[in-house]
Amino acid sequence: MTESASARDDKTPRTARGERTRRALLRAAADEFGEKGFHEGSISGITRRAGCALGSFYTYFASKDDIFRALVADMSGQVRDHVALRLPDARDGIDAERIGLLSFLEFAREHKEIYRIIDEAEFVDHAAYRAHYETTASRMAARLRKAAERGELSDDVDEVHAWAIMGMNVFLGLRYGVWDDSRDPQEVAAIANALVANGIARKA
Amino acid sequence: MTESASARDDKTPRTARGERTRRALLRAAADEFGEKGFHEGSISGITRRAGCALGSFYTYFASKDDIFRALVADMSGQVRDHVALRLPDARDGIDAERIGLLSFLEFAREHKEIYRIIDEAEFVDHAAYRAHYETTASRMAARLRKAAERGELSDDVDEVHAWAIMGMNVFLGLRYGVWDDSRDPQEVAAIANALVANGIARKA
Repeated sequence: MTESASARDDKTPRTARGERTRRALLRAAADEFGEKGFHEGSISGITRRAGCALGSFYTYFASKDDIFRALVADMSGQVRDHVALRLPDARDGIDAERIGLLSFLEFAREHKEIYRIIDEAEFVDHAAYRAHYETTASRMAARLRKAAERGELSDDVDEVHAWAIMGMNVFLGLRYGVWDDSRDPQEVAAIANALVANGIARKA
Repeated sequence: MTESASARDDKTPRTARGERTRRALLRAAADEFGEKGFHEGSISGITRRAGCALGSFYTYFASKDDIFRALVADMSGQVRDHVALRLPDARDGIDAERIGLLSFLEFAREHKEIYRIIDEAEFVDHAAYRAHYETTASRMAARLRKAAERGELSDDVDEVHAWAIMGMNVFLGLRYGVWDDSRDPQEVAAIANALVANGIARKA
């Protein structure tokens, strides 16, 4: 084990109460960075929002950079888990993509700060930004490949399809989740899913 | 005319030489902000790169914010013009989207700084960021509607399709244009275009 991994491990909560405090700090950090951005956001702003002492912050995080990195990983994982919970309802590989988008649109409406935080990672912590999208795309590519093996998708599914569908979802989430929530997410997901299933070329 | 519009108009170059200096400053700003980001980038860094005096800068731009805003509008327009030049080659509305993506991939490989600059606008000048994507999506939606009227696309083309295809293009440009250019852009554009045309559901 490297020294830095060991130092990091020391910060992992050992009790349920510790885990609750760490989660309260991450939630407060999402509000603080979501509202003020990384540069204007502060550790004291985070502890004030979380209602905990500065000492508690340093029990779980080494610095502002450290909690930001943890927050990006946490939001990335939250999206993954939120979508994964709903996927067992899917009828097939195409329907899984509809449910994936629908649950992401709902998540984006509930957590409008997610774009600001993930997008700011491009500048604050580029490795975390890239890891978020590469991990998400790999997960989608694996899902598509399995559905193709089950005979539900065309055999030539490719990594390009995963990046294409992820990009669709990100921009539909921005447009119909964060910027304007007047349109029914079910309808948005159905229209995008029909594109994924059969495209938009006029059929003879 | 409002006072601020009149102040802005005063900065518009009146001669070809003035226009060349303004363009040299925008190109230098793309390098400066692309490399250092908005906060670390400086007006003196821009004039040094452009090889012109500080006084020339203020002949054309009021501030660092002002040239950044002009740069976002300029890059947005460059992408639009780059794609528009190639669109007359399209066989139909589907092929137009293939050519649109292909020319965008080529543009992203040549101008890798475009993502950093447009994405940083989300934090530095949110209105410019939103305008870039809303304008691009409106243009795509109009293109899709016209193709549907010509009978080339299904009748139910929707604003959702424009945002979906734009999102695809943005992420394919990031993945196969900026981060890794080992894959043939023609191939990436062909795969994504087949998805737009006919989807990926297994056909009976």
